Amino acid sequence: MRLFFKLLQIAVITVPLLAMRADKPLRVVFFGDSITQAGVSPTGYITKVGEMLKSKGQESQYELIGAGIGGNKVYDLYLRLEDDVLAKKPDVVFIYVGINDVWHKASSGTGTDPDKYVKFYEALIKKLKAQNIRVIVCTPTVIGERNDNSNQQDGDLNQYSKLIREIATRNNLQLLDLRKHFQDYLASNNPENKEKGILTTDRVHLTEAGNQFLAEKMLEALVQK
Amino acid sequence: MRLFFKLLQIAVITVPLLAMRADKPLRVVFFGDSITQAGVSPTGYITKVGEMLKSKGQESQYELIGAGIGGNKVYDLYLRLEDDVLAKKPDVVFIYVGINDVWHKASSGTGTDPDKYVKFYEALIKKLKAQNIRVIVCTPTVIGERNDNSNQQDGDLNQYSKLIREIATRNNLQLLDLRKHFQDYLASNNPENKEKGILTTDRVHLTEAGNQFLAEKMLEALVQK
Amino acid sequence: MRLFFKLLQIAVITVPLLAMRADKPLRVVFFGDSITQAGVSPTGYITKVGEMLKSKGQESQYELIGAGIGGNKVYDLYLRLEDDVLAKKPDVVFIYVGINDVWHKASSGTGTDPDKYVKFYEALIKKLKAQNIRVIVCTPTVIGERNDNSNQQDGDLNQYSKLIREIATRNNLQLLDLRKHFQDYLASNNPENKEKGILTTDRVHLTEAGNQFLAEKMLEALVQK
Amino acid sequence: MRLFFKLLQIAVITVPLLAMRADKPLRVVFFGDSITQAGVSPTGYITKVGEMLKSKGQESQYELIGAGIGGNKVYDLYLRLEDDVLAKKPDVVFIYVGINDVWHKASSGTGTDPDKYVKFYEALIKKLKAQNIRVIVCTPTVIGERNDNSNQQDGDLNQYSKLIREIATRNNLQLLDLRKHFQDYLASNNPENKEKGILTTDRVHLTEAGNQFLAEKMLEALVQK
Repeated sequence: MRLFFKLLQIAVITVPLLAMRADKPLRVVFFGDSITQAGVSPTGYITKVGEMLKSKGQESQYELIGAGIGGNKVYDLYLRLEDDVLAKKPDVVFIYVGINDVWHKASSGTGTDPDKYVKFYEALIKKLKAQNIRVIVCTPTVIGERNDNSNQQDGDLNQYSKLIREIATRNNLQLLDLRKHFQDYLASNNPENKEKGILTTDRVHLTEAGNQFLAEKMLEALVQK
Repeated sequence: MRLFFKLLQIAVITVPLLAMRADKPLRVVFFGDSITQAGVSPTGYITKVGEMLKSKGQESQYELIGAGIGGNKVYDLYLRLEDDVLAKKPDVVFIYVGINDVWHKASSGTGTDPDKYVKFYEALIKKLKAQNIRVIVCTPTVIGERNDNSNQQDGDLNQYSKLIREIATRNNLQLLDLRKHFQDYLASNNPENKEKGILTTDRVHLTEAGNQFLAEKMLEALVQK
Repeated sequence: MRLFFKLLQIAVITVPLLAMRADKPLRVVFFGDSITQAGVSPTGYITKVGEMLKSKGQESQYELIGAGIGGNKVYDLYLRLEDDVLAKKPDVVFIYVGINDVWHKASSGTGTDPDKYVKFYEALIKKLKAQNIRVIVCTPTVIGERNDNSNQQDGDLNQYSKLIREIATRNNLQLLDLRKHFQDYLASNNPENKEKGILTTDRVHLTEAGNQFLAEKMLEALVQK
Repeated sequence: MRLFFKLLQIAVITVPLLAMRADKPLRVVFFGDSITQAGVSPTGYITKVGEMLKSKGQESQYELIGAGIGGNKVYDLYLRLEDDVLAKKPDVVFIYVGINDVWHKASSGTGTDPDKYVKFYEALIKKLKAQNIRVIVCTPTVIGERNDNSNQQDGDLNQYSKLIREIATRNNLQLLDLRKHFQDYLASNNPENKEKGILTTDRVHLTEAGNQFLAEKMLEALVQK
């Protein structure tokens, strides 16, 4: 009798495992900057994606890996692509980079020219596609939350986002248009046109609400077919 | 018969002239940067304002004075206010400055912080109003003609324009919202979303069409009561 | 007879001097940026100049006034010259500005071009001299304490210092070459070639030792004839 | 018997060496920016190195390859290392990059932070050494020819040069200290302390004399053992 339950128990556990073994968990790398580095913290967006999957009973189908480093620009991602992404043999990679490429122009004179931004971005994509990795490209979110295009870097962020949309089209890649999602959200949810405090704490890094919103968009993109 | 017409013609011309002699011509100073410096050239916007007035037979009612110097920012205007404007005892002054305050941030690291921009702008206004001069404040036009807020400096230009609109309200001054006029024009007349070549030759300085468009807006503002 | 005139001459000169000393202390304004703003704090350089004067029993001969505001560049001094300096009817004014004019190029894109720096500096001097105020011009100290010209802004600071030396010569003004004094000090007292921690806490703002050193140099310049 | 083997061993080693000298010239790649791109022009420094070798009758012993692209920074070299250098199977590579990494901070806000500069530089070296390529690292020359450390970027150029000297030591590489050579030359040959016109036409790009001077230093480094 005991043995029967034991066997049953094993069966209950084994069946999904077998199913899964056929489909081993999808390994997903989030490749980016400080926002992604913070994404694996207890309230970070990657943690939240994991919790959402768990609440749907799908946690075993995905393995989520954060690969964010503060201050990174597109060329920093390129430099550490082998070690931090390819070596992990991911199935899916989100590329979410561009804020520092724009921001550092004004804050330290070390941003990235748009043509170089595109060049390194496509070099990343080429190496990922060569490994048959599914790539999801994300437009940069915000530097300042004003919703009337009056944040200092809005022009540049809009332009770099257009470049990423073109990259997605040109390379036939899935686009997650985070900038548009954030702008739409702020158009509705920032009636006082504040610079920060809605989705960000400091114009760039995410509040709890910001992490939640980002997690939802990431998950939608991930499960999209 | 011929003589009669001749006399009539003289009368038609003379009557307003006599009226005007009582009211000496309105002295108008255009105070600004390289766009205004070029404004007095044969195809410049100030020259065109003069031609429009002439075609309406009102040239004797206005005296137009260009006071633009290339590369000027708001504090440069402040430094030369006495010599280049107040000394000329104008009735009306257009202040049209801000492009270099924004642009030089990226091109040479020598732009103007927004709080300082406002401070110097209001210092200008205070000195002009102390002389009972009618002041018309203009928002900065464009750095790049793309019509979807994707020119690098659009965020800053939008922000500095908002600051000028606030200055106008706070000081009860006439506003000439050149940036809005240019943006509206480009929304309709730049279907290919080009960076330059519509109203500007080089993203900033004006084409013949740009000078014409600016002249019309300046004249409208000038004759507005 | 000749001796009589000689004595008379001395008397004529001496009486007002004595009167002055009895009557009113020499009013000294220190005009500058955050370093000068901090100069009036308990351990600031202006406080220390006062203490040194006191230890020599000369405190009643001088009135020291701090007129420093954080973040100020040369044009900010110009804007507030009337209110913060001329209105106080000083006998002596130290101008000590330039660090932000150089530094803000890299940190926010809002530094000051060298030609504009000179123009505003000489406009300050002209207005001070028109009031017969004794002006002492100071070269900017340091942004980083490395003693081998390898701090990022050393080139610019050296150049702006040269411009001030030329201004002093051209306008026949007393020069206090603070940059040279600081560089000489660091050549001897920074054997590990550290970026900060000797005269500055953060590459710019002064340690106790920095305030002491600056106070000595200021006092030397003040009493110099 | 032992001697015989020893001699045999020497023969085995020597024959290919002799063959090599007869067979194939030493392939040298000059890897850099616009100065190197111009180096292959009729009066460029690479052309001049070739002419010097020819005048010594050694032209067949060296194959000189220019791999310079205008505007390149260290990360641009990294991106094109495979295609433009490794694919050419060079024996020697000169790395001469850094001017744009410093210069673009001020001119377009897109320079390179010093820590990233070092990181990419060492990544280049690692890949070159993995192919047993002899690497010669060069310090950046000048942005402005004033000889008293008063060119705007002197502080940064001095600092980046120190970083390269440290890289050379740390990686046991040959150093060609171009910045020191240029500074020494200008100390002696720029009595009027001009900004340009001695070794450069425009503060950066080389005059005929500049190309000649650079060619001599490159050749000295190349033949050095």
